[in-house]
Amino acid sequence: MQQQISLITLGVADLGRSKRFYGDGFGWKPVFETPGIVFYQMNGMVLGLWPTSDLEDDMQRPGLVRPGAFALAHNVAAKEDVQPVLDRLAAVGGRILRPANAPPHGGFRGYVADPDDHAWEIAWNPSWAIAEDGRITFRI
Amino acid sequence: MQQQISLITLGVADLGRSKRFYGDGFGWKPVFETPGIVFYQMNGMVLGLWPTSDLEDDMQRPGLVRPGAFALAHNVAAKEDVQPVLDRLAAVGGRILRPANAPPHGGFRGYVADPDDHAWEIAWNPSWAIAEDGRITFRI
Repeated sequence: MQQQISLITLGVADLGRSKRFYGDGFGWKPVFETPGIVFYQMNGMVLGLWPTSDLEDDMQRPGLVRPGAFALAHNVAAKEDVQPVLDRLAAVGGRILRPANAPPHGGFRGYVADPDDHAWEIAWNPSWAIAEDGRITFRI
Repeated sequence: MQQQISLITLGVADLGRSKRFYGDGFGWKPVFETPGIVFYQMNGMVLGLWPTSDLEDDMQRPGLVRPGAFALAHNVAAKEDVQPVLDRLAAVGGRILRPANAPPHGGFRGYVADPDDHAWEIAWNPSWAIAEDGRITFRI
């Protein structure tokens, strides 16, 4: 089967608040939105924001909790970009979990929680190529 | 900023168990692995499996809980493929949350939880193009 993820859906409490966070913090523009859902075209996949109750109904599993055991990462092109992105996200409704520093495995990274406590790692990883269209290629 | 997610990291309790689930269920092959982490090259981004305690340490946030308020989706090319994929994932350590059926917004989908309760939607969406390399393009 294709090594493919088509959609990442984040359950959110307030769609407008989340849209402001992703728009003002990352500068991302929706490809489609209604009062009930927002989609972003990402690098080969789609990011969706959906009220948590709708996600619970759709997956037929109530009781989703947070913070969940996952993280999303956004890589930047330069080490010097990491902390400013974390700061900007914190200024528009995020909360810094870990200020940027160098992990044992190399590179430079920090973590910020979005308004619903979903964790984003902002990372500079000089090994991983970032294509112009955002596609990421794993390298050691 | 690029509309880009470089890495999706799932916190797991047993790396070997998760590797078997993703390998036997989806047929995915790691691009890199150590006894402590597994990476898959996906469609423009990387999927990582990491012990939850390591993820907690790295983001400096203990107490990650489950099931988290998110879902990942894998799209298939035909409606007839949805339920068999759910069944195969359930046979290798997953748990079906919702058998496949047609949602109000169109297409065909079901949900399965991985061994750590992370939700996967298996979906057929005739509107969204799937490129040969797995890239997904949003369309209505």
